[in-house]
Amino acid sequence: MRNTPGYDRLIDRFARIATIGECSSMLGWDAAAVMPPGGGAARGDQLAVLAGLAHAQLTAAETADELAAAEADGTGGDPWRAANLALMRQAYTRATALPADLVEAQARANSACEKVWRDAKATSSFSQVRPYLEEVVRLVRHIGGALAPVVGLSPYDALMDGYQRGVRAADVTPIFAAYETFLARALPEAEARQARAPQPIRPVGPFSIEAQEALCRRLSERLGLDYTHARLDRSVHPFSGGTPTDVRITTRYIEADFTQAILAVVHETGHALYERGLPRDYARQPVGEAAGMAAHESQSLIVEMQACRSDAFLSWMGPELLAAFGGDPAPYHPENLGRLWRRVERGFIRVDADEMTYPAHVILRFRLEQALISGDLAVADLPGAWNDGLHALLGITPPDDARGCLQDIHWYDGAFGYFPSYTLGAMAAAQLMTAARKAVPDLDAGLSRGDMSPLLGWLRANVHSQGSRLGFNELLRAATGKPLDPQDFQAHLTARYLG
Amino acid sequence: MRNTPGYDRLIDRFARIATIGECSSMLGWDAAAVMPPGGGAARGDQLAVLAGLAHAQLTAAETADELAAAEADGTGGDPWRAANLALMRQAYTRATALPADLVEAQARANSACEKVWRDAKATSSFSQVRPYLEEVVRLVRHIGGALAPVVGLSPYDALMDGYQRGVRAADVTPIFAAYETFLARALPEAEARQARAPQPIRPVGPFSIEAQEALCRRLSERLGLDYTHARLDRSVHPFSGGTPTDVRITTRYIEADFTQAILAVVHETGHALYERGLPRDYARQPVGEAAGMAAHESQSLIVEMQACRSDAFLSWMGPELLAAFGGDPAPYHPENLGRLWRRVERGFIRVDADEMTYPAHVILRFRLEQALISGDLAVADLPGAWNDGLHALLGITPPDDARGCLQDIHWYDGAFGYFPSYTLGAMAAAQLMTAARKAVPDLDAGLSRGDMSPLLGWLRANVHSQGSRLGFNELLRAATGKPLDPQDFQAHLTARYLG
Repeated sequence: MRNTPGYDRLIDRFARIATIGECSSMLGWDAAAVMPPGGGAARGDQLAVLAGLAHAQLTAAETADELAAAEADGTGGDPWRAANLALMRQAYTRATALPADLVEAQARANSACEKVWRDAKATSSFSQVRPYLEEVVRLVRHIGGALAPVVGLSPYDALMDGYQRGVRAADVTPIFAAYETFLARALPEAEARQARAPQPIRPVGPFSIEAQEALCRRLSERLGLDYTHARLDRSVHPFSGGTPTDVRITTRYIEADFTQAILAVVHETGHALYERGLPRDYARQPVGEAAGMAAHESQSLIVEMQACRSDAFLSWMGPELLAAFGGDPAPYHPENLGRLWRRVERGFIRVDADEMTYPAHVILRFRLEQALISGDLAVADLPGAWNDGLHALLGITPPDDARGCLQDIHWYDGAFGYFPSYTLGAMAAAQLMTAARKAVPDLDAGLSRGDMSPLLGWLRANVHSQGSRLGFNELLRAATGKPLDPQDFQAHLTARYLG
Repeated sequence: MRNTPGYDRLIDRFARIATIGECSSMLGWDAAAVMPPGGGAARGDQLAVLAGLAHAQLTAAETADELAAAEADGTGGDPWRAANLALMRQAYTRATALPADLVEAQARANSACEKVWRDAKATSSFSQVRPYLEEVVRLVRHIGGALAPVVGLSPYDALMDGYQRGVRAADVTPIFAAYETFLARALPEAEARQARAPQPIRPVGPFSIEAQEALCRRLSERLGLDYTHARLDRSVHPFSGGTPTDVRITTRYIEADFTQAILAVVHETGHALYERGLPRDYARQPVGEAAGMAAHESQSLIVEMQACRSDAFLSWMGPELLAAFGGDPAPYHPENLGRLWRRVERGFIRVDADEMTYPAHVILRFRLEQALISGDLAVADLPGAWNDGLHALLGITPPDDARGCLQDIHWYDGAFGYFPSYTLGAMAAAQLMTAARKAVPDLDAGLSRGDMSPLLGWLRANVHSQGSRLGFNELLRAATGKPLDPQDFQAHLTARYLG
């Protein structure tokens, strides 16, 4: 079926919105990677103006007319067009559900809270940021409440849907409960097994930043990143940004240890490869975007955790590291790298956690943020609830709030409903890897030659090229034959840490 | 007088437009300095969408109402407000004078022509690009013709006014004619004097790019550039971009010779210091912007040509260069640096020209572009007219069109009326330097210590902080007591090259 005028106008409108988003994305990269500090104030204004322009394009009166006309025209049985139109409608519904003064109040409250949080974290002073967080929570509850009736979800689900479409708290709750049970058994076993194994030998630096950077670039190229469409830079927190034809990944370097830089680069390369593989035919359309934050995390983690920390890949990586840094070869033996990079440890900090304990950090946040949104938990009671919750999950208690409820920026910047994406992504990565291994016979043989192309080919066909046509569970069903099934993740952990 | 609601709305509107312009400026810097080649197509779309959004803000129906209301309110005798309102009106008048289809046709024609020009220049094939340039000229004549009645100027003046407000061809023609006469006498004299002087000794490289870059940064800092609000990067063509609180300058490096890199950096530093010194109180308002392209060029050239190539500054720079690069000290003797960097030569290429012959290149283009716009010169006759004109001015004839009428991008990208700014800027720089020397007794003493702050303080007070409040000649009158007077430039050249 040919496009109708109404649908064509929507395509133009959403392409314009997406192009404004590309500008914001590039300016966001610039701010984090290269901007001199004096540019910060103006950059905030620039991003706010772009956000306002995109919002105006989306919520314009004409959008409703164009949507109604295109929906009346039907989609001629084209699933891409149907999905695109549904996503356009969803974006419009969400954007128009919120009064402008509430959106503005939230932007101001988030910005104020996030600023105070930086100091509060540095001094581990929750009371300093508490009133700001109370205001943020008050407004996010308002927003969840305003979205809920128009999208037909609970307030928390309405928020979570903004990060990963099609995932509900009711789906996540039993998955996380089952994982808690698994962890209670698996973690002590993994620790005991680890205690019996030889201690890992740490490579001794310094490792020149230049050598690390060259290696990171070579490694990401090897994984499939094409630098005619990409950059690798440095930032305080590694991230992947930019646009599908110009992806920008970053990492950070310390001379004493190359581990962090390299593992961040392979993680961000996974994100970048997803963006690079999105369907060109639907570029700048909602259906041509990545399928959500959990789907995105599945792509970074399948590269970092599933592929690059596999025995096969480490057997290729060891000699590469030795060639790059020289010195004693013992630390670069693949078995030693495995012991170094696949180590479980009960810790306070989510971003430093291993793949087995990481979900505990997410489960804690998932439960607490639901209670904050529902009103069952007062902000004032957050530090205590945090410490109790972490102790129940991992048997440890943070010595201070900096290593407790102040550690992550997310809530202090207004992001509620985001945290589950990390663990849903980790579970999806294991499930996708299991299916890919069955479908692609030479996958591990490739990894043992430092060649990820067999895996990447499968991901491109089954995940990247699907854009946002399918929701999270539907994407997994199409790729693996079933919706999210946490058993594959548990099987992966069992094989790697208890096998 | 307090702001009125109409004027307040205009301030918000123009701040929004300027902020969109900042986004474009940053993305333009990114494209030239760091973007991977694969990002080019999307970047073009991004810049086009931003230009469209800014244009829509400027030409909205509400703008006319707001302008009428603010003009009716009066300006309460505030010259800044009066100038701002006049500039707003002028921007609106120019933007609404042109039908959208003409603007789009021009953007397409310029883009097509510029692409073909790159090949045509490489193969010195004017006939290849001729039809494209004919279309560009046809459209720019239309545009000049459409602007002329609404701004009350001739078509060429209307175009030139878009680059440097308040300068007319009738002002420029006698100034350039007088310079032609001066040059006919001065150039042979300078050549004869140069022939009698010792030959300059060229420093022998290679000069490491890292050492050059470190020196360039140190030098620009020394000249007053604050890197908490600036960056120095590399690009094929050096330029200054960014925004007043985040200026981005670039240069290019070759190992064999550091001259080009250093002189480009001091030139771009002059542009950047102007942006940094614009009045904060009028940031993102028309009156808070730089006073035009000729004014901008005066600020780059007062730093590069007047300050940094002065005897005083070279006496400081010589030892700095020797310290940076080592080797034989003879080339770094200030007198030798003067012979190297202040050398006249009849050449074909404008961008390589010395300060005495540079105006000849501009005079040639000024005359030819007026004839192209008026229709007195057909595009087909351009190569011949170019070669005849250059011979009349400098006594040399380009061996091919690549070194003739194909050398500059400007016309092939639709820029007519821009070229005079270069020489008006050079003349203004000499006039400002003459006035600054009188007003600031320790100016040259400062330069001989590598300290430009006495000069910079005077420029900040008399030029930078004035924004766009005054037109080009009014700015010069306020700073130097007279409108543009080419005698100061001739006196400068006489002292430097014939003294």
